[in-house]
Amino acid sequence: MSDTPLAIGIDFGGTSVKTGVVCKSEIIDHAPPIATQDFDGPIELIATIARVIEDLRLRHPAIAAVGVGMPGFVNFETGVVSNLTNVQGWTMIPLKALLEEKTGLPVSVENDANCMAFAEWKLGAGIGLQHLVCMTLGTGVGGGLVVNGQMVRGACFGAGEIGQMSIDYQGRTGHYGNLGALEDYVGNGEISSAARAAYQAAGVTLGFEECTPAALAVAAQKGDEIALKLWDDIGRMIATAAMNCCWLLNPEAIIIGGGVARAGDLIFKPVEKYLLAQLSGPFKDQLRILPAHFGHEAGTIGAAALALEAAGIV
Amino acid sequence: MSDTPLAIGIDFGGTSVKTGVVCKSEIIDHAPPIATQDFDGPIELIATIARVIEDLRLRHPAIAAVGVGMPGFVNFETGVVSNLTNVQGWTMIPLKALLEEKTGLPVSVENDANCMAFAEWKLGAGIGLQHLVCMTLGTGVGGGLVVNGQMVRGACFGAGEIGQMSIDYQGRTGHYGNLGALEDYVGNGEISSAARAAYQAAGVTLGFEECTPAALAVAAQKGDEIALKLWDDIGRMIATAAMNCCWLLNPEAIIIGGGVARAGDLIFKPVEKYLLAQLSGPFKDQLRILPAHFGHEAGTIGAAALALEAAGIV
Repeated sequence: MSDTPLAIGIDFGGTSVKTGVVCKSEIIDHAPPIATQDFDGPIELIATIARVIEDLRLRHPAIAAVGVGMPGFVNFETGVVSNLTNVQGWTMIPLKALLEEKTGLPVSVENDANCMAFAEWKLGAGIGLQHLVCMTLGTGVGGGLVVNGQMVRGACFGAGEIGQMSIDYQGRTGHYGNLGALEDYVGNGEISSAARAAYQAAGVTLGFEECTPAALAVAAQKGDEIALKLWDDIGRMIATAAMNCCWLLNPEAIIIGGGVARAGDLIFKPVEKYLLAQLSGPFKDQLRILPAHFGHEAGTIGAAALALEAAGIV
Repeated sequence: MSDTPLAIGIDFGGTSVKTGVVCKSEIIDHAPPIATQDFDGPIELIATIARVIEDLRLRHPAIAAVGVGMPGFVNFETGVVSNLTNVQGWTMIPLKALLEEKTGLPVSVENDANCMAFAEWKLGAGIGLQHLVCMTLGTGVGGGLVVNGQMVRGACFGAGEIGQMSIDYQGRTGHYGNLGALEDYVGNGEISSAARAAYQAAGVTLGFEECTPAALAVAAQKGDEIALKLWDDIGRMIATAAMNCCWLLNPEAIIIGGGVARAGDLIFKPVEKYLLAQLSGPFKDQLRILPAHFGHEAGTIGAAALALEAAGIV
């Protein structure tokens, strides 16, 4: 145990920054979350994060690296945060350099969906695989890829944006002008809107909170026909994006996580049904459709694991 | 010149097998095509190919390797042809082993679309790039990928099937049960059918041969509104599949070749318009949309180049 290298994993979210001490695939200690919006800009927040790191190092002197998962565009090589989707003021911030200067530890900075994919690949559902597609279903839909036994980041570190892929070339107009983006059909909010509309059409008026994915899962488990139909529709749309990944990359596994995936069989059964019905033999015979091993801790654990690997420690 | 290694490239098609002697990116000699359908099964055809190779070696003793591009599923590592789309009797044929035994030369066997992608990557429009998507538009729609400076073959050597990716989750039912497959909208035959229907709706009855992509290009160049609208539609559908590749892989370039791409600006302008309108900055700012450098010789040249690399000669 004392020889196992420890790393700090930081899950930087739009609401809070969560910092944990990670040993292999476990968070063995953590600091109180930092409220992201309490800070005007990155400088003071980074100083606070550095202090939290120092506090944790007092308790765990074996900490050897720091990994940060960021909700936005990050240059993994330089550790510069290009911009964040839901946090103001984070434009071209050299986060890796600033944190390394303050802590003296090797720091790696990566997109949060890639951290989750890395956690699943190295420590979770995808251990040992060479070709892997990870999807996270929540407020938004994200993803991360492994091809030829390597993470895929692409030309500008943007790869893996499964939620922006189109399932309908004449569909809804998305945030980036993209028509039919998966996220605009199966994001948390879109699921709730579709559910409210479906119940309304059946003469039942429900509030938004009665139509969350969690509430719809409970309803479907009780046999509610409208909820069951909604899960089938959601599964079909997710299967289309997954199918596109399969025809393009021929992966060994599709790993699906995030809040919406907590519906379990309600979502996995239709995804599997529609996915396997739309692939030929070499694409489906050995394909595994797996639930993510890690839940909300995936980002922290993946960031820490990535930091140790990037620093050449494991 | 005498130090430049030569390789034989074989473009194995449903109609004919074309064999060329390749020096760098040029076919410097070739054998008469062999009619694929003249042979009952693979054994006799392979013997004939081996004799053609021996004839070419008499004229070019510097030939150091043989590469074969096959229209179907191939295990690149073992050189076994799993099955071919349009040629009977080719199931689990150890083509590499058989040709190596007959010729004594190192042989590599690869999917034809991957050969084209390899040619463009190593010798054509994509030289020096690390992240590349190649599309070929013809009777079918094929593709090949380069990620992290490596060819992508996937778990079962199926990767790159861009033509089977869906552009509409509720669309037409394709060959493999996949709904909305790109190929079922922009393959040669589908373009002609769409054109005949569009002219028919305008009160003009045309034959199939008056509605080929080549004929439609001529009509559009003369300002025919129906043909122009068709090319715009085709471009929009191709752009959707290209966009999905971009969000997923964040490539430096999309290279488009094949017969349909010969329409030039008629196809490239709408592809570019619809593609760039549906991507965010990091996905489009440095993205290049390029016509393929090689035409119908891409498969032969790519197969030869791949053979030299696989044999460790270049």
